[in-house]
Amino acid sequence: MKKNLIVGQSGGPTAVINGSLYGVVTEAMRHTEEIDEIYGMINGIEGFLNGHMMDMRSLIETNELSLLRTTPGSYLGSCRYKLPEDLNDPVYPLLFNKFTSHGIGYFFYIGGNDSMDTVSKLSRYAKKINSDIRFIGVPKTIDNDLVHTDHTPGFGSAAKYVASMVREVAIDASVYDNKKSVTIVEIMGRHAGWLTAASALARKYDGDNPRLIYLPETAFDQEAFLTKVQEMLKTTPNLVVCLSEGIHDKNGTFVCELAGDIGTDTFGHKMLTGSGKYLENLIKERIGVKVRSIELNVCQRCSCEYLSATDLNESENAGIVGVQAALKNQTGVMITFIRNRDLPYELSYGTADVTEICNMEKAVPSDWITQDGCDVTDSFIRYARPLIQGKVVVPEENGLPMFAYRK
Amino acid sequence: MKKNLIVGQSGGPTAVINGSLYGVVTEAMRHTEEIDEIYGMINGIEGFLNGHMMDMRSLIETNELSLLRTTPGSYLGSCRYKLPEDLNDPVYPLLFNKFTSHGIGYFFYIGGNDSMDTVSKLSRYAKKINSDIRFIGVPKTIDNDLVHTDHTPGFGSAAKYVASMVREVAIDASVYDNKKSVTIVEIMGRHAGWLTAASALARKYDGDNPRLIYLPETAFDQEAFLTKVQEMLKTTPNLVVCLSEGIHDKNGTFVCELAGDIGTDTFGHKMLTGSGKYLENLIKERIGVKVRSIELNVCQRCSCEYLSATDLNESENAGIVGVQAALKNQTGVMITFIRNRDLPYELSYGTADVTEICNMEKAVPSDWITQDGCDVTDSFIRYARPLIQGKVVVPEENGLPMFAYRK
Repeated sequence: MKKNLIVGQSGGPTAVINGSLYGVVTEAMRHTEEIDEIYGMINGIEGFLNGHMMDMRSLIETNELSLLRTTPGSYLGSCRYKLPEDLNDPVYPLLFNKFTSHGIGYFFYIGGNDSMDTVSKLSRYAKKINSDIRFIGVPKTIDNDLVHTDHTPGFGSAAKYVASMVREVAIDASVYDNKKSVTIVEIMGRHAGWLTAASALARKYDGDNPRLIYLPETAFDQEAFLTKVQEMLKTTPNLVVCLSEGIHDKNGTFVCELAGDIGTDTFGHKMLTGSGKYLENLIKERIGVKVRSIELNVCQRCSCEYLSATDLNESENAGIVGVQAALKNQTGVMITFIRNRDLPYELSYGTADVTEICNMEKAVPSDWITQDGCDVTDSFIRYARPLIQGKVVVPEENGLPMFAYRK
Repeated sequence: MKKNLIVGQSGGPTAVINGSLYGVVTEAMRHTEEIDEIYGMINGIEGFLNGHMMDMRSLIETNELSLLRTTPGSYLGSCRYKLPEDLNDPVYPLLFNKFTSHGIGYFFYIGGNDSMDTVSKLSRYAKKINSDIRFIGVPKTIDNDLVHTDHTPGFGSAAKYVASMVREVAIDASVYDNKKSVTIVEIMGRHAGWLTAASALARKYDGDNPRLIYLPETAFDQEAFLTKVQEMLKTTPNLVVCLSEGIHDKNGTFVCELAGDIGTDTFGHKMLTGSGKYLENLIKERIGVKVRSIELNVCQRCSCEYLSATDLNESENAGIVGVQAALKNQTGVMITFIRNRDLPYELSYGTADVTEICNMEKAVPSDWITQDGCDVTDSFIRYARPLIQGKVVVPEENGLPMFAYRK
């Protein structure tokens, strides 16, 4: 019997999260025997609860389906809505009644940690009430911090952006190469340093910038940092230092907490800002050299001109494989990436129990970080290099990138 | 008689300043009858004084000449060295003795305002001592603030970067479109708002983001700003505001001066930072809506993936025309752009007296700014749109852009 499919996006966006949406929608269209309507939730599960949905086939009529693939942000809108821990909460029957009334047989949620928590709860509730709706998680996060998968869709493009930008910023910093300077690049990543580590890809030879890389996996020591900076300035007059927004000292105090106001988001995560700015002022005061700090900010997750073709293809495939898994009666799983080898790079796709994934975080392994805690090893480079390969040419109109927009 | 040519770069870099260098070098190579050696000054006139030069033909041997065209930053290194006002200063005979000993007949300086000041002084001193060395200024600045030229090389690519990034950031900001938010984008430009104005190109339709654009040409009123933000939030839940780093109140006090420490550069310009951050906190406090600020920072002048093909070609041509002007015995001039028409866009090249250009600044005309001071008019759009046209594909190696590096 034909059933309807619904897909949503949740959490912070990436530059390729719509690539996965494109994968889900196009693969669903290929299964006309099993799948009837293809709905999109507007603003994730929160919007769905308020009745906000759209017909994804309408993108064909507006010729926007192919544009969707390279559009950054979450086309369907996002949310940061946490379902109650207690499966006896009245929101569950409410949601499942809505699923039933819309004839939903397949549910896809594209997101990170917190979104997988939603998939876990919905699939567990389904089991409890013997519902046959299939719940599939499609991973995305620039943070690359999901367990049970080699890497996450979105990481490769963000890594390519970071590495390219650090290479360009290092050139910009070197134009006054007859003067000493320090450039600090602050990179996203609260608890996992994957994206900051990707800055190492910017190097062209041993001893090239960035000379120092600080991940949140290692305790940050301010005095050791200043000593390192002074040491590096002797051989690298225009020093580039990359650091994660989430670096903290051995007591767990974030460096940026020394700098300014801190808030918390809906999920209770600390909102960070200003580690780079804080260290800029510290260097100015203690070393007295010219110094500036650059926050790559949201550009690292929405810049369409630094997409990795590898990442975009894999993101689309994650959506495709997700639909195939649902049709094979899988539920409560997240699509995973399994690396067969590094060179030539070979990847296959699998699934893992979403309950084992949600609310877990995968850090950069400690043996991929150098002993002095201010660099990554070749193992990381071998891991990350294949993920940034290939260029994507985004269609342009009137000198600017063309994107798909929800009406 | 064959003479030698020397070329240097000065001031802050752009993404296409090496395009002009490429133009000078390749055009010089075409004039084997008149031009013998082609030298590059390392770190501009300051490095030249210290004897730092290189042979530009060596780039052919290393196959780096074509890479040079799309390499950001100043390949030759830069300086911020101001020649003395007094032409009787001993530095002038010192410099001209060096020119003579190296057989220099043609001198090219690629730079902005301050660099044109150097060209002006050298050409005036040459006249004074009856030297026949030709001094030519090749313009570059992302600020687009040079007089006597329709626009400057480097502006188009920076404008394309800003407009693309604002379009992408607006998408990123709209993923939580069921909640209100303000995103502030701070754009480079001390006194001239050209680059900030370019954010208007990001719009796809009337009433699209960015809804508010603040240039330093208009006095900034904090209370009027807060009122506008509140008004705009009614129709645009995810509001994007673009502002120049140099916005100031009616007394000339920079908004960022309210925020933090201020230094000055070698030329006595105030070094600005933090207008966006200051207004972020102001909105948080006074309106209480979710708000973030993004500083586009140096990425707007060194990002190779958002190059405008139009800008890159014109930058190269500025170098080519510069060599041709010198060979026609012109001196003390800067290459200028003369726009013949907007649509289809037609440009021709000219020269203007560099002494009339240096130390002047061209602001955005007041009739290109709306009366309420928070937007630009269609005249600006017609002016700027042709300058961002065309895409440049930068060669990639191992997943990252390939650039030319000085040995």
